[in-house]
Amino acid sequence: MSKTIKKIGVMTSGGDAPGMNAAIRSVARTCAFHNIECVGIYRGYEGMIEGDFKELTARNVKGLINKGGTVLKSARSSEFRTKEGREKAYNALIAKGIDGLVTIGGDGTFTGALIFNQEYGFPVMGIPGTIDNDIFGTSHTLGYDTALNTVVECIDKIRDTASSHNRLFFVEVMGRDVGHIALNVGIGAGAEEILIPEEDLGLDRLVESLRRSKKSGKSSSIVVVAEGDKIGKNVFELKDYVDENMKDYEVRVSVLGHMQRGGSPSCFDRVLASRMGVKAVESLMEGQSNYMVGLLSDKIVLTPLEKAVKGKSKINKELIRVSDIMTT
Amino acid sequence: MSKTIKKIGVMTSGGDAPGMNAAIRSVARTCAFHNIECVGIYRGYEGMIEGDFKELTARNVKGLINKGGTVLKSARSSEFRTKEGREKAYNALIAKGIDGLVTIGGDGTFTGALIFNQEYGFPVMGIPGTIDNDIFGTSHTLGYDTALNTVVECIDKIRDTASSHNRLFFVEVMGRDVGHIALNVGIGAGAEEILIPEEDLGLDRLVESLRRSKKSGKSSSIVVVAEGDKIGKNVFELKDYVDENMKDYEVRVSVLGHMQRGGSPSCFDRVLASRMGVKAVESLMEGQSNYMVGLLSDKIVLTPLEKAVKGKSKINKELIRVSDIMTT
Amino acid sequence: MSKTIKKIGVMTSGGDAPGMNAAIRSVARTCAFHNIECVGIYRGYEGMIEGDFKELTARNVKGLINKGGTVLKSARSSEFRTKEGREKAYNALIAKGIDGLVTIGGDGTFTGALIFNQEYGFPVMGIPGTIDNDIFGTSHTLGYDTALNTVVECIDKIRDTASSHNRLFFVEVMGRDVGHIALNVGIGAGAEEILIPEEDLGLDRLVESLRRSKKSGKSSSIVVVAEGDKIGKNVFELKDYVDENMKDYEVRVSVLGHMQRGGSPSCFDRVLASRMGVKAVESLMEGQSNYMVGLLSDKIVLTPLEKAVKGKSKINKELIRVSDIMTT
Amino acid sequence: MSKTIKKIGVMTSGGDAPGMNAAIRSVARTCAFHNIECVGIYRGYEGMIEGDFKELTARNVKGLINKGGTVLKSARSSEFRTKEGREKAYNALIAKGIDGLVTIGGDGTFTGALIFNQEYGFPVMGIPGTIDNDIFGTSHTLGYDTALNTVVECIDKIRDTASSHNRLFFVEVMGRDVGHIALNVGIGAGAEEILIPEEDLGLDRLVESLRRSKKSGKSSSIVVVAEGDKIGKNVFELKDYVDENMKDYEVRVSVLGHMQRGGSPSCFDRVLASRMGVKAVESLMEGQSNYMVGLLSDKIVLTPLEKAVKGKSKINKELIRVSDIMTT
Repeated sequence: MSKTIKKIGVMTSGGDAPGMNAAIRSVARTCAFHNIECVGIYRGYEGMIEGDFKELTARNVKGLINKGGTVLKSARSSEFRTKEGREKAYNALIAKGIDGLVTIGGDGTFTGALIFNQEYGFPVMGIPGTIDNDIFGTSHTLGYDTALNTVVECIDKIRDTASSHNRLFFVEVMGRDVGHIALNVGIGAGAEEILIPEEDLGLDRLVESLRRSKKSGKSSSIVVVAEGDKIGKNVFELKDYVDENMKDYEVRVSVLGHMQRGGSPSCFDRVLASRMGVKAVESLMEGQSNYMVGLLSDKIVLTPLEKAVKGKSKINKELIRVSDIMTT
Repeated sequence: MSKTIKKIGVMTSGGDAPGMNAAIRSVARTCAFHNIECVGIYRGYEGMIEGDFKELTARNVKGLINKGGTVLKSARSSEFRTKEGREKAYNALIAKGIDGLVTIGGDGTFTGALIFNQEYGFPVMGIPGTIDNDIFGTSHTLGYDTALNTVVECIDKIRDTASSHNRLFFVEVMGRDVGHIALNVGIGAGAEEILIPEEDLGLDRLVESLRRSKKSGKSSSIVVVAEGDKIGKNVFELKDYVDENMKDYEVRVSVLGHMQRGGSPSCFDRVLASRMGVKAVESLMEGQSNYMVGLLSDKIVLTPLEKAVKGKSKINKELIRVSDIMTT
Repeated sequence: MSKTIKKIGVMTSGGDAPGMNAAIRSVARTCAFHNIECVGIYRGYEGMIEGDFKELTARNVKGLINKGGTVLKSARSSEFRTKEGREKAYNALIAKGIDGLVTIGGDGTFTGALIFNQEYGFPVMGIPGTIDNDIFGTSHTLGYDTALNTVVECIDKIRDTASSHNRLFFVEVMGRDVGHIALNVGIGAGAEEILIPEEDLGLDRLVESLRRSKKSGKSSSIVVVAEGDKIGKNVFELKDYVDENMKDYEVRVSVLGHMQRGGSPSCFDRVLASRMGVKAVESLMEGQSNYMVGLLSDKIVLTPLEKAVKGKSKINKELIRVSDIMTT
Repeated sequence: MSKTIKKIGVMTSGGDAPGMNAAIRSVARTCAFHNIECVGIYRGYEGMIEGDFKELTARNVKGLINKGGTVLKSARSSEFRTKEGREKAYNALIAKGIDGLVTIGGDGTFTGALIFNQEYGFPVMGIPGTIDNDIFGTSHTLGYDTALNTVVECIDKIRDTASSHNRLFFVEVMGRDVGHIALNVGIGAGAEEILIPEEDLGLDRLVESLRRSKKSGKSSSIVVVAEGDKIGKNVFELKDYVDENMKDYEVRVSVLGHMQRGGSPSCFDRVLASRMGVKAVESLMEGQSNYMVGLLSDKIVLTPLEKAVKGKSKINKELIRVSDIMTT
C-alpha cells in the first residue's frame, strides 16, 4: 500500500531534448494544482547525490514552455552507478523530504531509476525525453517531433545549394540505433536515398540507385544517413566511395550535429510534455511506481519501466515503402 | 467488379492547407511508380468542369514537398452543385481518359465527390486537407500540425510584447466548429484561458478566471479564442466586455487570420501527405472507391466517405483537463 | 567638466521592440567591463518614480541577447509628465546612487529624458528602440530589422493562400507616421501595391492599378497598407471599396497586429544593440549627455536628443521607384 | 559612345547565395519596365558557352523573390578560362542578340567578366552575391544578412544543448578569407570567443580566455571559428588541443557547413537584390560598363569592377572591441 505523496522531485538526465522544460513546468504545475510540493533536482543523478535542489512553484516555472534545453541541466553520473552513490542520493532525497521522483530522459535514465527503486523502494515515474525516439512504450519521445522539423528545415536549405550546383549531398542526422529521424526527414525532405541502422542497403546498391536517379533526370541528390547506418561506413567514407565510383557527381558532406537537439519545442512536443507531466505526477499520487508515461495510439498510457528499458522501438515498415515510392 | 485504373486525376478543393502540394506530389509519384498516368485538375470542381488539366509526372512535381498552398489551386464551384455542372465534369474526365479521382479537401469536397460517385459510379478517394482538423475518420488532417506550429510561434511573439507591458491579449485563431487548434495552441503557448466552440465558459467565469490569474501574480495574460467560440461574442466584443469589467487590465486583440493557412509544411505533414497519397492511389488501383484515407492510432486506414462526412471530429477531453491544470 | 560616472541606470520605455534585451545586456556588460555599477529600472519612468530597481551584473544578464520583449518591462507614465513625478524620480535615482541614465525607446521616451535633464542636469543617453524606425538620427532603430523579417514571413504565408485561391489581400502592417515597414516589406514580399503615410495614391488609382495587375495575368494580389496610410481609410474600408468596385476579385483583410513587435531579434539587431549599448555607456563615462546613439552610414554616431526628437525620419525615395518597377 | 541596349543576359556564378533569385527577378522586371528583353543564362559561364538560355519575362520570374539558391543554377567553368571558351561564349551571346550582361557572383565571377569585356568590349555589370561578404565596394553582398540569421539561429540551438550540459562548443562557420560572418554571429549569439582570419589570438591565449570564462561562472561556452582562422588549426584540432589542456571541459565540435548558403532570403536581402537589379540594368542602359553595383552608406553606388576585384573587404575593428566587451 502506498502512502500519500507530499513532495515530488523532478530531474532531467541523459541527452537534452526540446520539451524537457515544458515537462518540468507541467510537473511543477500539476503538483501545485494538487497542493503538493515540487523540487527540481539539478544535473540529473549527479545533483541528486549532491543535494543540488530548488523548489519549483507554479510561478517560477513561468516562461519555460517554449525554451529549448533543460533549465535543470543534465549530466552523466558515474557515482550513481555505485552503491555508495545511490545511498548518498537516497539520503539527500529523504533529507529534503522528497517522497516521489519523476525522471525525464532515456534508457540510461530509466535503468538508474529502476535500480534505485529496487534498492530503496523509492517511487519513480519516467518521462521519455530524447530526440531519437528510441524508447519502447511510446510512439513519440519528447523532442522527437521538434528535431524532425529542425532537420527538415536544414535539409531544405541544403537542397537550395545542392540544386543550384547539381550536387550530391550526404547529410548525417542523429540516430545511432534506430532510424526514426533519418527515415522521416528523408521522406519529409524528399531525399533520394535514406540509410538507416535497420537496413543494409549495401554500397553497390547505393551507387546503383544514385546512378538511376541521375539518369532519370534528377540534377541534385540528397542522401540522408543515420549516424548508426548499417553500411558501416561513416558519412565521409561514403563520400570517398561515391567520389571514386561516380566521377560525374560533385559530392559534399554535411553533419548536422548537436543543433538537432536544440530549439524551441514544436506545439506537439509542448502539448505532449504537458500531458506527460500531469500523468506522471497523478500516477505517483495514486501510488503507482516503476512506470514510464508514454503516448500510444494518441492516448497517454503507462508502460512498466522494465519493459521500456528492455523493449526495442521499431521503425514503421510502411514508411520504408512510402520512401521507396517517393524516390521513383 | 472494378476494371483496371489507368489514369488518375488529382485535385484540391476548399480552403488550402500546408501539405496539399506534398499530397499532390505523392499521388503523382505513386502513379509513376505503378506505371499509371496522373493528371492534375486545376481549381477543384470548377476546373474539372472546364477541363483545366495538366499531366503530372514524377519529375514535374519536383520541389513541391515543402511548398505551402496548392499549385493546383482551389476554388468553390457553384456549378458543380447542379446536375448540369456535374455532367460537364464527368464528360471532361472521360474525354481526358481519367478513370479514378483523388480529391484533397474537407467536408464540402467529399460531399461533392460522393454525389458524383452516386450519379456516375466514378471511383473516388478522399484525402483530408484542412488546417481545422475537423474531419471524422482521421486523427490529423493535412496542414493541422503545421498550423499548430505557426500559431504557437505567433503567440510566442505576442507573449513577448504582452509580458513587456503587463497586458491581456485576446488572440483569435481558426476553428469555426471545433476547438482543436485553440485547445492545442492554448496549451502549447501557455494561454491563461481557452475559449472553444465545444464549451461555454460564460463571460462571468472568464472575467473571474482572469481576476484569479492576475491575483496569483501573473503579469500578462493570453486568452486564445476559437472563431466559433461558444460565448457567442467575437473577439472585439470580448475585449469591450473585459475592458468594462476589469479596469486594471490593458486589453488588446489580435486576429491571426489567413496566415494560419500558409507556410512550408511541418515534417509530420509532409510525411502524412506522402503516406496518404500512396494509400489513395493504391486503393483506387485495388478497386476501392468512396473512402477517405485517414490516420488513426498512427496507422493509415480507410473510412467510408459517407461516414467521414456525417461523423463529427471531437476534441480530446483529457486536453481540457490538462489545460485547466497548466493554468494553475 | 563632468564628474566620474559610478552607477548607470538603464530602462526601456514606450512600445517594446526586439533587441531591447540585447541592449540592456550590452549596457550591463559594458559597465562591468569598466568596473562601474549598473542598475535596471523596471517599467520605464513609472518604475523610476517608484524606485523599482535591480542590480545588473555581467552574469545576471546572461541569456538575454536572443530574447524578444524587454525583461525590464515598459510602461507609459502620466506621473512623470508632472513636475512632482519627475522630482520623485530624481530622488529615487539619487537615493540609489545612480548618476547616469540610458533610456531605450522612442520619441516620447527621449522627450521625457530631455526635460528631466533640463530640470536636474541628470546625464542621459538615448538608444532608439522601436520597430517603426521613425527616429531621426539613425538609419535603423532596434527591432526594425527583426520586424521586417517577421512581417515578410507572414506575408509569404498569406501569399500561399492568396495564390491558391486567386485572391486579393489587404495586409495592414505597423507604421502610423512613416512607411518604412510597409515600403520594405512590400518590396520584400513582392506586393502588388503599397500604401504609406507619405504618399496619397488615391482610391481611384489603387483600383486602376489592381485592374492593370489582374489584366497583366497576376492571379493573386497583396496590397500592403501602413496603419497611417494617406488614403485615410482603414484596411476594412479599403476592402469594402474594392469589393464594390472590382466585382471579379475575392478580397480579404489581414491585420498583422502586435505579433510584429515580438520574436527573437535578428543578428543585425543583436549586433546593433550590442554596439549601441557600448557607445551609450562610454559616452556617459566621457561626460557626454543629451545625445542619442544612432547608426548612420554603418557607423555608430551621436545625435543631440533634441534634434532626434524634432527631426523626422524620411523614407528612401529610391525605394518607391524600385517598388514601382518591381510591380511591373 | 554606347549604342542602345536591347537584350540583357543575366547569370549567376560561383557559390550560390540567398537573394540571387530576387536579383534575377529584379533584372527581368526592370528590363520589362523599360521594354527591353531579358534572357536568363543557365549555369554561369558554362551555360553561356553552350548557349543554355531562357527568355525571362515579368511573369515567369513570379514567385522567385523568396526562394533560396538560384534557378539559373551556378557552375565553375574551366573552359571560360581559355580564349576559345570565351570566343564560344561571345558567339552564343551575339547569336541570341544579347548586348549587355549582368553577372551575379563573387570575385571569380567578376574577374571573368572583366577579361571578357577587355577582349570583346561586351558591356558587363556585376552584382555581388555571396554569403561571405568578402567583396570590396559594398557593405553588404547578397545573402550575407540571411546567412547571419541562419547561423545565429543554429548557434542559439547549440547553446540550448551546451548550457544543458555545461559544455564547450567549437562552431565552425563560413569565411575563408574574411571574418565578417564569424565576428557578427559571434557577437549576435553571445559567443565567448571568436576566431577570425584577420587576427591570430594564439592557442595559449584561447585556453587562457576559456579558463577565465569558466572561472567567472560561465557554465557553457561557444567559440565561433571562421573556416580560415589564423591559428591555423581546423576546428577538430582545436578541440583536441583544448581537450588536452583543459581537463575540466567537455568539448564538442559543430561544423555548420553548406546549410549556411541556403534558405529564404531575409527582407534586407530581398530589398537589396531588388535595388541592385534595377541599378545594374539601368546602368547598362545608360551606357555604363565594367562596374559592380554595391551598397555603401545605405546608398546604391557603382564601383569599377577592377577595383572590386583588387580591393579587400575589411572587418570593422569597432566590432572586435564590442565583442571583447560583451564577453566580459
